[in-house]
Amino acid sequence: MDKVITEDMGAFSHHYPRVAAVVTAQARGRDNAMAVAWHTFISFKPPLYGVSISPKRFTYQLIVDSKEFGVNFLPFAKAELVASVGGSKGYEIDKFQRFNIARDKPVKTAVPILKVAYAAYECKLVDDKLYGDHRWLVGEIVAVHLLKEAFTPEETLDLEKVSPILYLGHELYVTTSKDVRCFDREVYGKR
Amino acid sequence: MDKVITEDMGAFSHHYPRVAAVVTAQARGRDNAMAVAWHTFISFKPPLYGVSISPKRFTYQLIVDSKEFGVNFLPFAKAELVASVGGSKGYEIDKFQRFNIARDKPVKTAVPILKVAYAAYECKLVDDKLYGDHRWLVGEIVAVHLLKEAFTPEETLDLEKVSPILYLGHELYVTTSKDVRCFDREVYGKR
Repeated sequence: MDKVITEDMGAFSHHYPRVAAVVTAQARGRDNAMAVAWHTFISFKPPLYGVSISPKRFTYQLIVDSKEFGVNFLPFAKAELVASVGGSKGYEIDKFQRFNIARDKPVKTAVPILKVAYAAYECKLVDDKLYGDHRWLVGEIVAVHLLKEAFTPEETLDLEKVSPILYLGHELYVTTSKDVRCFDREVYGKR
Repeated sequence: MDKVITEDMGAFSHHYPRVAAVVTAQARGRDNAMAVAWHTFISFKPPLYGVSISPKRFTYQLIVDSKEFGVNFLPFAKAELVASVGGSKGYEIDKFQRFNIARDKPVKTAVPILKVAYAAYECKLVDDKLYGDHRWLVGEIVAVHLLKEAFTPEETLDLEKVSPILYLGHELYVTTSKDVRCFDREVYGKR
């Protein structure tokens, strides 16, 4: 099997799949939600979460104003909702109203938390930096909303209970297989 | 189903699963490889990839020295190798030798590219910033290595050909389901 080497980056979907999350924000009397795939946890102490967002997005404006954002993780059955908030513009419509999105109350911020989320982070903005064509927004996680039944006692996602939304690129979505395997790095690192 | 709200962050595995990648680097006459789960693409123009790494890691030292790194995506059949490079220390052993890791030649950098990778990026370091207890390393992707058969004509991963490695936290790994679904945001955003 031969490999191709290229500097033509194309659509750049090779790094997918990634969990599709919904980033939420509020300011100016408006709530908004957007779909994101470019995001990651980046520090334990303090707990920091980073999200890459285009500065053109309405959500970005709300985050800059309020210095807060939410990160919501939804079950696969709600992948259509991710596509809906991803394909509509907060400048034009109230997505919460249009898509009938129910909210949980935040506790440390004013960001909307999605009721359908099996996990959600409330974040206080600690950095906002331009990298290329996107802003890198880093938030300190100040509260965690968890659907307890969705997780094992070790706090890993229980795939018998919840199937996460994985974005593959090009409007394609999958979820996880059910066969969880353990490869303990302490064991495998000493082979 | 009730939700729990907490400020006790625990093990922080709620945001998983994530594709487990292998970051590679070379300097001082040494090659090294480490497992990462905290990484994301962050910009199209220029194409930028970010990786969160502890400054204690040998790989971090090599990246600082060489200003280059590689990001390698492996098939699920190689999840053991991810655990092996994740559970061993480049300060102590030559992981490429110990785990018998075959290399492809890089074209724009000197970073080792893993032959078993179905996709790999060669990156030139453009930023190195401390966020909490990890360094946020941003690299411009200057070359892409692709196993062409692993991708559809649209450059999304062909899950009939390759199963990606998804890390769930706590040494647990899964892969994707096979049932790919399309939720076109242009359609769902206009419902």
